[in-house]
Parts: sequence; C-alpha cells; structure tokens
Amino acid sequence: MALSEFALIERFFSRLGASRADVALGVGDDCALLAPASGEQLAVSIDTLVEGVHFLAGTDPAALGHKALAVGLSDLAACGARPAWATLALTLPAVDARWLEGFAEGFGALAQRHGMALVGGDTTRGPLAVSVQVHGLVPAGSALRRDGARPGDRLYVSGSLGDAGLALRQRLAGKVPDEDLARRLDRPDPRVALGLALRGIASAAIDLSDGLASDLGHLLARSGVGATVELEHLPRSAGVAATGDWSLPLSAGDDYELCFSVPPGRLADLTKSMADLDVTVHAVGRVEAGEGIRWRLPDGGQLRPDGGWEHFR
Amino acid sequence: MALSEFALIERFFSRLGASRADVALGVGDDCALLAPASGEQLAVSIDTLVEGVHFLAGTDPAALGHKALAVGLSDLAACGARPAWATLALTLPAVDARWLEGFAEGFGALAQRHGMALVGGDTTRGPLAVSVQVHGLVPAGSALRRDGARPGDRLYVSGSLGDAGLALRQRLAGKVPDEDLARRLDRPDPRVALGLALRGIASAAIDLSDGLASDLGHLLARSGVGATVELEHLPRSAGVAATGDWSLPLSAGDDYELCFSVPPGRLADLTKSMADLDVTVHAVGRVEAGEGIRWRLPDGGQLRPDGGWEHFR
Repeated sequence: MALSEFALIERFFSRLGASRADVALGVGDDCALLAPASGEQLAVSIDTLVEGVHFLAGTDPAALGHKALAVGLSDLAACGARPAWATLALTLPAVDARWLEGFAEGFGALAQRHGMALVGGDTTRGPLAVSVQVHGLVPAGSALRRDGARPGDRLYVSGSLGDAGLALRQRLAGKVPDEDLARRLDRPDPRVALGLALRGIASAAIDLSDGLASDLGHLLARSGVGATVELEHLPRSAGVAATGDWSLPLSAGDDYELCFSVPPGRLADLTKSMADLDVTVHAVGRVEAGEGIRWRLPDGGQLRPDGGWEHFR
Repeated sequence: MALSEFALIERFFSRLGASRADVALGVGDDCALLAPASGEQLAVSIDTLVEGVHFLAGTDPAALGHKALAVGLSDLAACGARPAWATLALTLPAVDARWLEGFAEGFGALAQRHGMALVGGDTTRGPLAVSVQVHGLVPAGSALRRDGARPGDRLYVSGSLGDAGLALRQRLAGKVPDEDLARRLDRPDPRVALGLALRGIASAAIDLSDGLASDLGHLLARSGVGATVELEHLPRSAGVAATGDWSLPLSAGDDYELCFSVPPGRLADLTKSMADLDVTVHAVGRVEAGEGIRWRLPDGGQLRPDGGWEHFR
C-alpha cells in the first residue's frame, strides 16, 4: 500500500474528535485557524511517546492513540484548562491502514469524550513515535500552576498511585495483569474534571507522570517550599499495597493523577467541590518552609527514595 | 554526562527566542499559558524532521535547529500569520551538551529574528527527530488559505526554485555545494514578511515544501480549479537552470518559497506592496476552470512530471 502523506492524513485524521465552532479551519491547510474566546488564555503542552522508551513494541494502536492524547490531557488537567484542540505528529516505520485505524479510534474516542477536536498533523516515515500537542482554554489568571504552594497548605493526590507501574512490571515478567490494572497502564483516565473543579481552590498543582517523588519535587521547587508526606496515607490499590514496594507509588510513574496543595482556608470548598466528581482525593501531607520532601513511614521512620522515573535515561 | 530531562530543558531551552508580553507562563510548568489579543485568530502548524528522512546524519545541529523552526515559519507565512510562540519536542539518541548548544543557537537566533518565543517542550530518548509546533496570530478572517483561487487569477512564486534540491544532490554525490546554494538547503529563509504583505491581496497561498508540482496541486484541488504554468517563467538560479532538469524546481522540494494566486483586480496592489520586500515574486501562470496543471514548455510543448517529492516514501 502506498498512500501518500496527504491521503493518509485525510483518510484517518480529517475529522477526529469533537466538532467545535471555534475551529475556523481544521486539517488540510498550511495551518489550522483557531478562535479562542476573548478573555481566555491558551494552555498548551507537547509530549512525545517513543516506542521502546514510553511504550512496548507491539502495543495495541488503539491503546497508544488513547495514551498519547491522555498524557497531554493530564497536563491540561494540572492547569485547570478546558480541553479544546489537539495536533498530532506521527512518525511511522511503514504505512499500515489497520494500525492507523486502531490508533485513530483510540485517539478519537478520548478526544470526543473531552470535547476536543484534532485540528492538524504531520505524518512522516521513521521509527515509531507520537508527538501530541494539546491546547486548552482557561479564563485569564485562573490557571493552576506549580508555583503557588505555601507552608501550611495541605497536600493531596487523586485516585491511587503505582497501578500502572505494577501492570508494566507484571507484563515485563511475562504475566498478564488483570483487566483493571492493565487499564491503568494502557488507558489512563486524565483528571480533567478534577482540574477544573480545583480552580480557585488549589494553590498549586502538577500531574503525576514521572512519579510522586519527582513530580511533587518539581512543584515544591517551583514554589520554593518543602513538604512532609505520610506514606501510610498514600492511596494504593490492594495489589500495589501487597507488594510492599514504595517505589511503585513513588517513582514508577505513568499514574496521570493530580497532586495539589490547598490552603487551610479552602478546605471546606474542596470538600464541597469534590462531591460531584468520580475520583476521590486523599490528604497525604503538608507543605512546609525549607526544601525537599520528608517521607514519613507508618512507624515514624523516614524513607529515602532515589527519585522519580526519568524519561531520559 | 547524565543531566535529567528537566535540567536539559532548563539549561538550553528556558529562554530561547524573543521575550513576549503575551506569554503569561513559559517553559517549566505543566502547560505554557498564552494570551492572544482579542479579535485575533490563532494559526498553528506542527512538523517533524526525522534523521535520514528529512536531513542527513551528521547535520550541523545549528542548521537543524534553524531548519526545524523555518519549516513551521514557512507554514505561518503561507497563512499570512505573524509568528508568536513555538513548542519543541526533541528526541535524542544521547545527551550531548555541545549538540544541544548548537541546536539551541540555530533555533533561538531564527526565533529571535521573527519575534517568536519558545514556550514549551519535551525531551525524550530515541532516534533523532525534532517536532516543532508554531503558533501565529492573524486578525480574524484575514488569514490566507489554500481554497480561494478562482479562474482568471494570476499565479506567482517567490524567490527561486530548486536550489535546495541541487545542493542536496551535490552533497549526496560527495561534492561541496557553494555557500549560497548550501544556505538554501541548510538555512532556508521563511517568507514571513511576504505572507503578511499578501493579506488582502492573494486569493490563495501555500508554501513550497514538497515541490511546486505537488504543492500547487494541493492549492488547486482545495480551490476546485486547474492551472497552466509557463515553465520559462519559473524563477531558477543559474546553477539550477544549467542542469536543464525540471525535476529540481518542480519536485525536489525544500524550497520554502510561497506560491499564491492574485485576482486581476489586485495586481496593482501587489506591485505596490512588493516594493519594500527583500524577496521578488514572479508571475508563472494562470488559474483556469477544470482541474490539474498544464506545464507549458518554452517550445509550446507540455511537460508531464511524476509529481512532487513525498516525505512518506
């Protein structure tokens, strides 16, 4: 099969995701033309997934399409931005219509669910890699950032940590993770609704892609503060808890949960705004003056992890 | 050397390009926050360059940094958009500070020249590839598009065609192209000022990345028209003309010139607005009803090229 670049893009990517009135011109011209509403800021983030680094060779293309977009949606969630548009740069070793169909299905279904339109892309030949840029909208001045945490703020994480890491570990050992666990690795559910609900409540937020140790470290460094985390309060599934391995929730990464800080005066608002969400949040510690993270074990001792999972290694 | 992903990004990419008041938050958070002015539309385009496909192994990193951004700037030029922000997803086989320094210098100098800020990025390990997304601004409704050419419009191309193709051909044959020719391949000069000048004058425009045969074909197809091109009027450098090879100007690609159509009633405006630009434009043919392109040879015969250079081959 020898479809041209243009025919490929047209066929699979010309109408992916939601249809939006603020897309003046979508896929098929030199640029897409987008019309943000007056008074809104644009939140953008770009991420690349490379075969053999971020996903295993032979990964189901639909799961990859889902995940490539989910990673970006998780960044929008961390900023409290409403998803709007995505662009996709796809590098493929060969033209494979079935693979493209699967990828488009996984990407398109998640885009649709978040009201997001695919507005542009580029398809090139090369080793399998996917770059996705997401674009979200947020009222000027109301985005969540990493740099607002202050001593005395309470620290929270959503969902549970370490499931994706456990699923990957099982798969690399030749085991088949159970369905719920596998979904946490293959089809993460970005916390977009949570991010929107945290606007005006959280003092700082970050998404957990590299692991709590690394990502919370970034939030604290940007805010110029430190923290103590009570390990017994970290949300862990029964499977992760059973391993007794703290590296899963702290540095395995790929969780795509949110970590955020809330000032004492906003705790009541937090409780109220969480009532309608389908994800729970867990108080895990406290922001303090100084720097670094103290990881308190249930017995009162301290854990010293080696730091989060790094893509570049 | 084992710099982390974060240290890498911080060190080389935290302050590349121009500083802009409409960047509310740049590199270093989950998302960049951007503030387009009210009434402006956003023009976006993403492109990937892969080693061995779009550039030769061992390419000077500064030239690659320049070119990765130039490709996107050329798309903004084709839309008549003013460059504003860029994001960069860089996949590298290994950490090499000197390489990164060179890349950042080439990318940053071109960004600076066009008043563009680098606002976000991602660095991953893998086979060398660069994805750049460019973001431009254009008053609502005034962007140049591919779909506005009408029968009777005059067709133009800027600069000269085929130089980059000739430089590449010489290099692949082990020769060293002369400096001017090499610059056309390694450091293309995107026609941003020309694109801005064409707003309100051109009925349609496209940038020439794949070659005139392919790219003009896209413009005509989107406009639902055909064209006749007089080959003797194609702008060619002495070196390209001396080869007598029409495939250089028609399908070698990598020219990053603009091709555009102008209605008869706008030709006087075109002449006026071109006076201040440092690139010349050349009338090469005419838009006609129907479809396809007739390539008229100087002797009155017709040329039948095989079509443009395709990235995906």
